[in-house]
Amino acid sequence: MEYQYYMPTKVIAGENCIVKNSSVFSSLGTKAILVTGTGSAKKNGSLQDVLEALESVGIESILFDKIMSNPTIDIVYEGAELAKKEKADFVIAIGGGSPMDAGKAIALLASQDIKEEELFSGNYENKVFPMAFVPTTAGTGSEVTPYSILTNDKAQTKTSIASPLLFPKVAFLDARYMMGLGQATTINTAIDALSHAVEGMLSVRATAMSDFYAVESTKILAECLRELRVSSESVISLELRERLLHASMLAGIVISHTGTTAVHSMGYSLTYFKDIDHGRANGLLLPSFLEFIKESKPERVEQILSLMNCEDTRAFRSLLEDLLGKKETITEEEIKTYSSIAIKAKNIANGIVIAKEEDLQKIFRESLN
Amino acid sequence: MEYQYYMPTKVIAGENCIVKNSSVFSSLGTKAILVTGTGSAKKNGSLQDVLEALESVGIESILFDKIMSNPTIDIVYEGAELAKKEKADFVIAIGGGSPMDAGKAIALLASQDIKEEELFSGNYENKVFPMAFVPTTAGTGSEVTPYSILTNDKAQTKTSIASPLLFPKVAFLDARYMMGLGQATTINTAIDALSHAVEGMLSVRATAMSDFYAVESTKILAECLRELRVSSESVISLELRERLLHASMLAGIVISHTGTTAVHSMGYSLTYFKDIDHGRANGLLLPSFLEFIKESKPERVEQILSLMNCEDTRAFRSLLEDLLGKKETITEEEIKTYSSIAIKAKNIANGIVIAKEEDLQKIFRESLN
Repeated sequence: MEYQYYMPTKVIAGENCIVKNSSVFSSLGTKAILVTGTGSAKKNGSLQDVLEALESVGIESILFDKIMSNPTIDIVYEGAELAKKEKADFVIAIGGGSPMDAGKAIALLASQDIKEEELFSGNYENKVFPMAFVPTTAGTGSEVTPYSILTNDKAQTKTSIASPLLFPKVAFLDARYMMGLGQATTINTAIDALSHAVEGMLSVRATAMSDFYAVESTKILAECLRELRVSSESVISLELRERLLHASMLAGIVISHTGTTAVHSMGYSLTYFKDIDHGRANGLLLPSFLEFIKESKPERVEQILSLMNCEDTRAFRSLLEDLLGKKETITEEEIKTYSSIAIKAKNIANGIVIAKEEDLQKIFRESLN
Repeated sequence: MEYQYYMPTKVIAGENCIVKNSSVFSSLGTKAILVTGTGSAKKNGSLQDVLEALESVGIESILFDKIMSNPTIDIVYEGAELAKKEKADFVIAIGGGSPMDAGKAIALLASQDIKEEELFSGNYENKVFPMAFVPTTAGTGSEVTPYSILTNDKAQTKTSIASPLLFPKVAFLDARYMMGLGQATTINTAIDALSHAVEGMLSVRATAMSDFYAVESTKILAECLRELRVSSESVISLELRERLLHASMLAGIVISHTGTTAVHSMGYSLTYFKDIDHGRANGLLLPSFLEFIKESKPERVEQILSLMNCEDTRAFRSLLEDLLGKKETITEEEIKTYSSIAIKAKNIANGIVIAKEEDLQKIFRESLN
């Protein structure tokens, strides 16, 4: 039994956990930069709770609410400049994957000078602003990973910064902030979490310890996804959202240890070129990826299908198709372009079966036509 | 779903993991104090591996090999003095619970001045020597807890120091060091781990997250204990020992969050006054404690019995009796003394059913006569 396990983030979960635990912020610094998207943190109550908590412990803050979906390198440098100018000394990121990913890069860039061409190198000094994260979707798991995924226009895809420095000090999980999320976003983000758990089990870096988290997460998500399939938007309960947020966090711990696989590399093209939501992109690709793996490693795929309560890969495909609805289409030319980009990604080599470029083409073809 | 989760120790598991990961030591300091018992670390190869790893990265060390079973307050002050005198700046503790518990106190006392009467107060400055831990038994889980349990002669029991400062930076889990452990020690320590997992489930502080670890640990230990029941000493395989070490670590994560319950408070008297091994003491008491809890909370006990693959509490008692063999006896006077001490312990209030002094007496009486 060989493994390494490391996840130093303190996770605080529960209704109103930010205000109840406001003293935590005092241990992080004296002035916070609040990193958010343009709208949702204001609407769902999370920003207000953070401001209330900060006020109660007398900590100042400055708002940086410019993070777009799939954040760019420019925006994180802009945030870091603001943090320095305003003499902030810690980061609070509030939102889905995008503000959290941007928050990590800002925490790094505000604490040390890193040139743009060195940003993806991993060669950093051992310092970073402390971070507190407030996920407002249940999917990315970024609150417990050492990754920051940024849009990399030079490589025409998304690329990750990975460093143990990027683990937040604290993650606050309060599912109330998700109550206003629509059915489609809830499903897409849940499928993102599922993709993390499943890809973690299909990674060469999987261990007894990562499987422990992946198995639990997959089981919870299998139940949640079936409930989402039959529910209409108005009846997604707080209780269901809490399970989704918990499972998404567990799946984040999985990929912290295993990384992701070809599904993510391929999905990034669908997001970069066709603006397909990240979780949805993974969900579109996952059934054919499972079938591809099954040819060489049937036992592992059977284990995953059993956790999903699916008789076979067809049942798994059918569950995801019900959730994702009408699929986007893709041309042969796009298939070739995207496969040629995805094959260069680091996480291709991470699979228990290593996909060749023609395998990626076949998966794209089966998944979107 | 409300919980807090925090376990910042990096766990590195596998054969020869210390030498393979010697670079880890360079991140901890420049001179180590090695805290061990009087003999076993030298015999089982663990000390030699640590010295080899330190030499390979050019780190000096000083050996403090005086830790007795159930370490005293005097010995940890002596160790801290040596660390200061020798200008060590980090601690490597190697051994069972005693050297690890002592190592934590030494790491704390070497970094700041704490008077003996303040030692159990929890009021410390925010500094401690970094620690690397090498468990050589599978039971205490101390490598992933924020507790140091010391013999407290004033209170005539064992008392714990608890502080997040006491989490080691790194834990190395290599089951090879356990290959020479006898059947009785292997069983006693495994039962200590089981007691942690089960008491964690019987704690008012149990959460979805602590249960996640407790359920996995209990399931693994239930299998391992059955294998230990039928195996003779010579056939305890490395593979079985690896599962025990893994389960013990998981159970350590449980009590880091839940604390222990009356079983531990009561067991400390059996250890303090009658020199009964800590794990064995817990094992002697656990069946009657389960029966006591079952009167008020039958569902929770049923859940534990099901994880243990035991039909009822009698089957659970029978499994433990097979493992523990002939029991020690106890007089009525001892029962009264020990109960009056145990009832004062903090962890009594931790149970999902709070035991009164007469409940403790009844449990002692049933367990040891």
